Amino acid sequence: MPKLTKKERQNQLVALLHKNPFMTDEELARHFQVSVQTIRLDRLEKSIPELRERIKSVAEQNYDEVRSLLMDEVIGEIIDLHLDKSAISILDIREEHVFTRNQIARGHHLFAQANSLAVAVIDDELALTASAKIRFHRPVKVGDRVVAKAKVLETKGDRTKVQVESFCGEEMVFSGQFTVFRSNTNSAREVSPGT
Amino acid sequence: MPKLTKKERQNQLVALLHKNPFMTDEELARHFQVSVQTIRLDRLEKSIPELRERIKSVAEQNYDEVRSLLMDEVIGEIIDLHLDKSAISILDIREEHVFTRNQIARGHHLFAQANSLAVAVIDDELALTASAKIRFHRPVKVGDRVVAKAKVLETKGDRTKVQVESFCGEEMVFSGQFTVFRSNTNSAREVSPGT
Repeated sequence: MPKLTKKERQNQLVALLHKNPFMTDEELARHFQVSVQTIRLDRLEKSIPELRERIKSVAEQNYDEVRSLLMDEVIGEIIDLHLDKSAISILDIREEHVFTRNQIARGHHLFAQANSLAVAVIDDELALTASAKIRFHRPVKVGDRVVAKAKVLETKGDRTKVQVESFCGEEMVFSGQFTVFRSNTNSAREVSPGT
Repeated sequence: MPKLTKKERQNQLVALLHKNPFMTDEELARHFQVSVQTIRLDRLEKSIPELRERIKSVAEQNYDEVRSLLMDEVIGEIIDLHLDKSAISILDIREEHVFTRNQIARGHHLFAQANSLAVAVIDDELALTASAKIRFHRPVKVGDRVVAKAKVLETKGDRTKVQVESFCGEEMVFSGQFTVFRSNTNSAREVSPGT
């Protein structure tokens, strides 16, 4: 990447955060090949709040309440939720999530984040995973922030299919299709006509 | 089940434990429709050690060492291991594993047990799950003991397929097929000829 002027960098920073509001200062610093301190100063000058505040403001704007499990039972932090439609959560990978030997995040933590998001998005008092097909695309390391995005694909009878894709920055690290059993089919907004 | 004499029950108990040495006293009591205390007395009279001791004696007889991860990184307790062939682990479902609301074990704990067993069975220093197809057959409750059995199906190049089936008593509660990436294909005993 050719060296950008400060003005160019700050303009690109605004555009990038508009597209992906969950990027951390560390990820932005890597992206622009500048120091984290430079990114912080850029944010200050452009009046862009820090990540936590950006997340909160997104969350406060539009946020359904989780019904199928208790909020503190969700693995990761839910920052956006539209019941029976879509949901987003973030999980910061810390020492307790990784293998000692190679600092790679253990698969079941990424699975737990995606699985609990697939359950949380269901608009029902009881929701349990029936089956899943999952794929780990690349290793996730300590310090990475994993953003999981769930999308409800269809509901047929008492089964709802939920697609979850998890990203570090712009790179997909995990994907899965979950079939979730729900107790009360009446509460489902049927998105698959004819069933 | 017609009421058995004590002698009949004790003989069946010996046969049953021979077939499934991991059954708990509670499961045996349910099976024979007697009290747990009765089962304990039966075991004493027939000189059958308690479950932990039975497991240990199985484990001490034939047990490879885990290579792909640290022993305390395995979710559940490994009680049998033949590298690149098969492995067994047990996980006792406690309060911390279940949903508060319905006392049902959270899917990611069953997944974690199966996934770490699928990795532990690999005869390599580096093994990571690439993908999996999993199914939850019935809910598991607090107090249940989950016995997971892993079987290596085939190794092609740097990918090994591992089938894991998990049981409570004689009932299957979880199954999954895991594709595990391994770093060193030379160490694999090729079980899929021609690759």
